[in-house]
Amino acid sequence: MLMKHGMNSRIALLDCAKSCVLASSPVFRRQQFLLRSLGGFIDHQPHSRDMQVLRSFEVDSECVIRAITPALDPSRHKGQAGNIAVIGGCREYTGAPYFAAISALKIGADLSHVFCTKDAAPVIKSYSPELIVHPVLEESYNVGEEHKKSISSKVLAEVDKWMERFDCLVVGPGLGRDPFLLDCVSEIMRHARQSNIPIVIDGDGLFLVTNNLDLVSGYALAVLTPNVNEYKRLVHKVLSSEVNEVDAPQQLLSLAKEIGGVTILRKGNSDLISDGDTVKSVSIYGSPRRCGGQGDILSGSVAVFVSWARQHILAANSNSNLSCKNPTVLGCIAGSAILRRAASLAFSNKKRSSVTGDIIECLGKSLEDICPAS
Amino acid sequence: MLMKHGMNSRIALLDCAKSCVLASSPVFRRQQFLLRSLGGFIDHQPHSRDMQVLRSFEVDSECVIRAITPALDPSRHKGQAGNIAVIGGCREYTGAPYFAAISALKIGADLSHVFCTKDAAPVIKSYSPELIVHPVLEESYNVGEEHKKSISSKVLAEVDKWMERFDCLVVGPGLGRDPFLLDCVSEIMRHARQSNIPIVIDGDGLFLVTNNLDLVSGYALAVLTPNVNEYKRLVHKVLSSEVNEVDAPQQLLSLAKEIGGVTILRKGNSDLISDGDTVKSVSIYGSPRRCGGQGDILSGSVAVFVSWARQHILAANSNSNLSCKNPTVLGCIAGSAILRRAASLAFSNKKRSSVTGDIIECLGKSLEDICPAS
Repeated sequence: MLMKHGMNSRIALLDCAKSCVLASSPVFRRQQFLLRSLGGFIDHQPHSRDMQVLRSFEVDSECVIRAITPALDPSRHKGQAGNIAVIGGCREYTGAPYFAAISALKIGADLSHVFCTKDAAPVIKSYSPELIVHPVLEESYNVGEEHKKSISSKVLAEVDKWMERFDCLVVGPGLGRDPFLLDCVSEIMRHARQSNIPIVIDGDGLFLVTNNLDLVSGYALAVLTPNVNEYKRLVHKVLSSEVNEVDAPQQLLSLAKEIGGVTILRKGNSDLISDGDTVKSVSIYGSPRRCGGQGDILSGSVAVFVSWARQHILAANSNSNLSCKNPTVLGCIAGSAILRRAASLAFSNKKRSSVTGDIIECLGKSLEDICPAS
Repeated sequence: MLMKHGMNSRIALLDCAKSCVLASSPVFRRQQFLLRSLGGFIDHQPHSRDMQVLRSFEVDSECVIRAITPALDPSRHKGQAGNIAVIGGCREYTGAPYFAAISALKIGADLSHVFCTKDAAPVIKSYSPELIVHPVLEESYNVGEEHKKSISSKVLAEVDKWMERFDCLVVGPGLGRDPFLLDCVSEIMRHARQSNIPIVIDGDGLFLVTNNLDLVSGYALAVLTPNVNEYKRLVHKVLSSEVNEVDAPQQLLSLAKEIGGVTILRKGNSDLISDGDTVKSVSIYGSPRRCGGQGDILSGSVAVFVSWARQHILAANSNSNLSCKNPTVLGCIAGSAILRRAASLAFSNKKRSSVTGDIIECLGKSLEDICPAS
């Protein structure tokens, strides 16, 4: 039914495009752009048979969330429920790192940092006094060629001062694509890896990683969270093939294995998760609203759940009742499920006018319904 | 009744003015200004006969809204429900572009951008993390004569990077009247036109367009949304005549035809809409509050509905059950009706203290009441 609707639209647009061949070339270009968008949209609709296949991978996300969410114990100290850092925020983008960082707090992390450029910092600070915002990154336009090396070292030293305290980094929300900034962020990722700190990579972080696979290759604590287009680029780059919807779980498994066992959360109608060893699916109902920023909530949420899952696996000492023991896979399952539930709650209240901030306000209830704090 | 009230006020003010002839000259000038304003106001109140004429153009706006609002389909991707860009925001004005851009999101667009000056960007960003704000425009005070050409090219290149992704531009909210900035914006409009992207023009954008009619002349995807004074200037410029209230629909029709079939939404007690081919009126009750910013909500809302109407007309492939097939007229009808309903909801709650932000918070319910999301 949904498929049919998509097909009809596509056919209508194809007809229209044909009739416009003789129209001015910019008109045709615009229509081709629309067709491309719709084409991509249709290519990624699972057939009902594929849906059945996906269902066989469906995981009991509530069980995972209950297992890894730490008890709220008055004897615990600040920081023990999670200290998260988002690397992102530049002159152009400030909303995305804020969404990721505030989501981490709203899930239940104790501290949430943002490392961004000097232009972005006052704006991100103004969104909320709850975040710790470090104005340390630099973009090329602000740095002379002769100072690049010294400034790069300074940026790295500023982040390194904090590195050991972090339970997870989120790299990418609102990062932009400035080459000098991305070089610095590559170095930050290498240092995080040396310190064995999990890294969730989204948005422009995925652009960086797809072009520099060695940054994550073989690092079991790396999580990639690609959307439709980011996944397509990753598949092209790593598997030198097209996205295969007929056997999506197998292709995802191969991709994760090929990048040396990183965990990939492929966002879509159903979220598919693999670490090259196992495949899981989360399909509980979310929201039909596709307002920008939901990916940022996911990256911040996954970061918190990965750090909790790591604590759980360490503490359980192989006695966890969960069949999966990989904290990054568990974190992805929990993050995906909590975002979907929160989006559903926000939509039931605000309908078409629901925006990312409304979803963030529902993260708490979304978790509380599954795993009451007391 | 309103007419009578207006007349009484006018007479009272005339008496008052007479008694103040000997008062200080600035006081007298101020009163003369008020009189002139009221004169304009009275001139634009339709007589009851005119009201009857207007009623014959009244359109079933709810039917239009239901037809063009897309179904919320979980298989759709980010951007498919609309990607809107507002060109506006300078050192002096920051509220107007924010109101237009956030209204687009609250109606149900997926993404909303603002292209503004570097001074305005941090402020607009700080209003909401939901918007993507690009600090790319420049004003004369910041640009030496010798750099104007290169900076103009740079501004254009920055906007062009994004242009193909936009479903509609809004040009004008908080744009200001700096000559260099307006030259750059003229170029942006020419590029949008080449790419066949609809443009809604309000505020200072109307100042620009009234003095440079070639920017929109003959472009069927242009929408002008003039208020009383902006309409008067447009009529003077294009028809070389005074505003004619006795046959307002015919004059509007002639005006739209004379500018080559652009769509004009003439804001007033009743909103009148024409593309030079047909005239429609939207008179449903709004709010008696005239707080600044409502025009910005309208421009952002019209932008979303124009893009939805365009999708609807393309997909329906001439099988739409709507008698009017012009997406810009349909978008104006829907935008006008939704704003009026939202303003009415806000006023019933906040009365005299209702401001533009209160109306924006009612946009969701205003649409939901007519066209439930599920």
